[in-house]
Amino acid sequence: MFESAELGHAVEKAVYDREVPALREALLNAQFDLGAAASFPVVILIAGLDGAGKSATANTLNEWMDPRYIQTHGTSEPSDEELERPHMWRFWRQLPPKGRIAIFDGSWYHWPIFERVHGHIRNPKLDQALEEVRRFEQMLIDEGALVLKFWMHLSRAAQKKRLQKLESDPLTRWRVCDRDWKHFAMYDTFQEVSERALRHTSTAGAPWIQVEAVDPRYQKLTVGRTLLDSLRHRLDHPAPPPAPVVAAPTPPSLDGLTILKSLDLGQSLQKADYERELEKLQGRLNLLTRHRAFREHNVVLVFEGVDAAGKGGAIRRITQAIDARLCHINPVAAPSEEERAQPYLWRFWRNLPRRGRFAIFDRSWYGRVLVERVEGFCTEADWTRAYGEINDFEEQIAASGGIVLKFWLSISLDEQLRRFEERQSSPFKRFKITPDDWRNRSKWDAYQEATCAMLDRTSTEIAPWTLVESEDKYFGRIKILRTLCRGIEARL
Amino acid sequence: MFESAELGHAVEKAVYDREVPALREALLNAQFDLGAAASFPVVILIAGLDGAGKSATANTLNEWMDPRYIQTHGTSEPSDEELERPHMWRFWRQLPPKGRIAIFDGSWYHWPIFERVHGHIRNPKLDQALEEVRRFEQMLIDEGALVLKFWMHLSRAAQKKRLQKLESDPLTRWRVCDRDWKHFAMYDTFQEVSERALRHTSTAGAPWIQVEAVDPRYQKLTVGRTLLDSLRHRLDHPAPPPAPVVAAPTPPSLDGLTILKSLDLGQSLQKADYERELEKLQGRLNLLTRHRAFREHNVVLVFEGVDAAGKGGAIRRITQAIDARLCHINPVAAPSEEERAQPYLWRFWRNLPRRGRFAIFDRSWYGRVLVERVEGFCTEADWTRAYGEINDFEEQIAASGGIVLKFWLSISLDEQLRRFEERQSSPFKRFKITPDDWRNRSKWDAYQEATCAMLDRTSTEIAPWTLVESEDKYFGRIKILRTLCRGIEARL
Repeated sequence: MFESAELGHAVEKAVYDREVPALREALLNAQFDLGAAASFPVVILIAGLDGAGKSATANTLNEWMDPRYIQTHGTSEPSDEELERPHMWRFWRQLPPKGRIAIFDGSWYHWPIFERVHGHIRNPKLDQALEEVRRFEQMLIDEGALVLKFWMHLSRAAQKKRLQKLESDPLTRWRVCDRDWKHFAMYDTFQEVSERALRHTSTAGAPWIQVEAVDPRYQKLTVGRTLLDSLRHRLDHPAPPPAPVVAAPTPPSLDGLTILKSLDLGQSLQKADYERELEKLQGRLNLLTRHRAFREHNVVLVFEGVDAAGKGGAIRRITQAIDARLCHINPVAAPSEEERAQPYLWRFWRNLPRRGRFAIFDRSWYGRVLVERVEGFCTEADWTRAYGEINDFEEQIAASGGIVLKFWLSISLDEQLRRFEERQSSPFKRFKITPDDWRNRSKWDAYQEATCAMLDRTSTEIAPWTLVESEDKYFGRIKILRTLCRGIEARL
Repeated sequence: MFESAELGHAVEKAVYDREVPALREALLNAQFDLGAAASFPVVILIAGLDGAGKSATANTLNEWMDPRYIQTHGTSEPSDEELERPHMWRFWRQLPPKGRIAIFDGSWYHWPIFERVHGHIRNPKLDQALEEVRRFEQMLIDEGALVLKFWMHLSRAAQKKRLQKLESDPLTRWRVCDRDWKHFAMYDTFQEVSERALRHTSTAGAPWIQVEAVDPRYQKLTVGRTLLDSLRHRLDHPAPPPAPVVAAPTPPSLDGLTILKSLDLGQSLQKADYERELEKLQGRLNLLTRHRAFREHNVVLVFEGVDAAGKGGAIRRITQAIDARLCHINPVAAPSEEERAQPYLWRFWRNLPRRGRFAIFDRSWYGRVLVERVEGFCTEADWTRAYGEINDFEEQIAASGGIVLKFWLSISLDEQLRRFEERQSSPFKRFKITPDDWRNRSKWDAYQEATCAMLDRTSTEIAPWTLVESEDKYFGRIKILRTLCRGIEARL
């Protein structure tokens, strides 16, 4: 697989000196156009062998272009902050917004390859990790990113020579340590694992570009020219149409029976019973957050439901029971400018809690398959792929110790009307009702259909939905608190 | 995940009797249109629990439509023929051509789920298998197939009742055996594994459709209506445009150096040396095919190269050494009508050899990324995704004991001209030269570029390319035979 990158590619100094000024100018122009249009982000991965000039290449790109609009990320050990979240969290933080460039030296390929080379994991686990990477990159591409992956290659002999040369020069000796020679001794294993990684992740949308790393002039010019060509191509051609959806059938509702309609909304609780239960459950929840084992977990709660279903009230009954420092509520409205410049899941990734903490989402990433679907804010291709992306997201939270619980608060159309009218006539609640609420109400059926599809596709053992009969607020709140306590207890 | 399929969906008999005649007529019409257009195949999977009416549903579809154009496949134990090939081979054999419908009862999901439920494999292995399935289905979709996946669900209580009912009726008692009750005892495990399978393979192009299996009328009508809606949608709307290619850059050739140009075509062999070596190597090869361990392997050889590069001659030197019964040569020209009605890899899958056998491909699946790319016979989206599909294909052959060796025969432009002229003037060889050959020659550079990209993307440790300097035929043939012997020896 690496044959083409072992041919002894080289570029004369005179040629290099002649080419670079024109290339720099063109790159700067392209970078300016990229920023002006701000229609897509550019993700550049530079991976490959130790000593193959990865950081030198990253530095050259920064030198050739305007470094203010380039973020360059190395592969250091993860921080405390990062260790307490899913391992992809650090990369989500580092994603460039539309119009900007991010260079990843090492990137999400580093650890899977490292772990396999050192025998900590075997091939099935490696493949699992690579598959996660594939899906992540596919999501980036579907969201419009230009993804360029450079693999810097040196033959065994060339790597040895490179390390020896660095070592023999007093100025660069510090760059070679024992670890580098230990890695060199594993050259063949590294190649074998890398080949597998490249084979599994060279996709049509983001193929690996192999670059021979012997001659730095050839290496830099190749990376620069490839970047320029790809950038210009994307800038000068209109955005590609969304991928077609071949078949996304939901079975026809033959008998009119849906999971939402099957709920018994008549369930209720007396005020006295409610108050007794509430106190008991809040106490239980509070104790749970002080449990020793709770420090290894975090809790992610999702609240969805039609307008006026009682999400805010239910959330308040939870936060009353928890130390406010441990809990962050995310009311989800239209995305900010910064958030619109990123993949839609980005604003939820950035708000994932550390261990021992709660994050409560009042509306959530499910907006993609509810409001955005129903209102046509995104294409069919976008929301049909979102189910899988959301499941991947929640699976990653759960895999890092997260407890994901999702609540759908259900009320009837009549009860909603009653609450709307109450809100309008109450001076304290008037701000809670807007023309949007009345408009959404008129699309009740479309929302119900989208909700049923959402429940079918995303209620998993890892991150289950709980349907909450909220016609009676007391009943709904108690059900939520009880489910929450049980959900945490099951994991401690 | 299965909540919506546990609601007690049911359809009244009167409704059913009224609906079915119209549905049948519409389905028959759609099936006729499907056959007349013959523009895409339909793949229907019916999976789910034992006793959930999978085969009854398949039978109903056959009854409602014209069964002559429907193939229905069960999940029996694989045959001897099938055991000696990659495990997906049996399903490739069963794929419907364009214009036809195939129903798979069980399908490619059966074994991964079964193995995991019984604890023979763990989650990483299961995920690996599911990923293979995902890619296979994605390939079907990219090739235009309509893929419908029905999951027949029964709650624990409903399955128990179903089995008891079957057992209590003397007419159906034979359908329930000990195994069914043993499976029932594993209901929870089965659900958990199934949920994982559905979650990983519910893609935008082929989502799972869950169907509650308690009421057969509801079940059949749901499947029938979903099939009808999907069929009509595809028939009445033009084929979706090919998926866009966001970025598929090959690095610019800065120094004009390519792997093909780096070959030393001056290498040659004296006739006497050639004959001595040839005899030795052919003997060695023959002995290898009689080796005990060889019975566990098969050999797949690929020959590619420009016209007149000496593929035929080289192949003859191999077949001379092998019992003709063990070896099948596949000269690959334009696909037949039957082959054009299938995914492009189908005609190669069908020709995979049994164990202990050789299959030699004189030109191969690489036509997709060579001639079809250069001549524009397929879209950019098609050939860019082909690299990954081809690697998957070869990985599956290797995983089932196959030895895959690929030879690229290289000659210079001058040598090609000399051979063309020789062919034209020789009465025995005149048939070997056509206007096509001259035309291809004029696209030399485009072919060279496509070849270099192919070598970079598909030369793997599992299925390596060998570049053969064939300017001197003697030298080239000996290199091929030696590589072949070594390749087999390495695996015995």
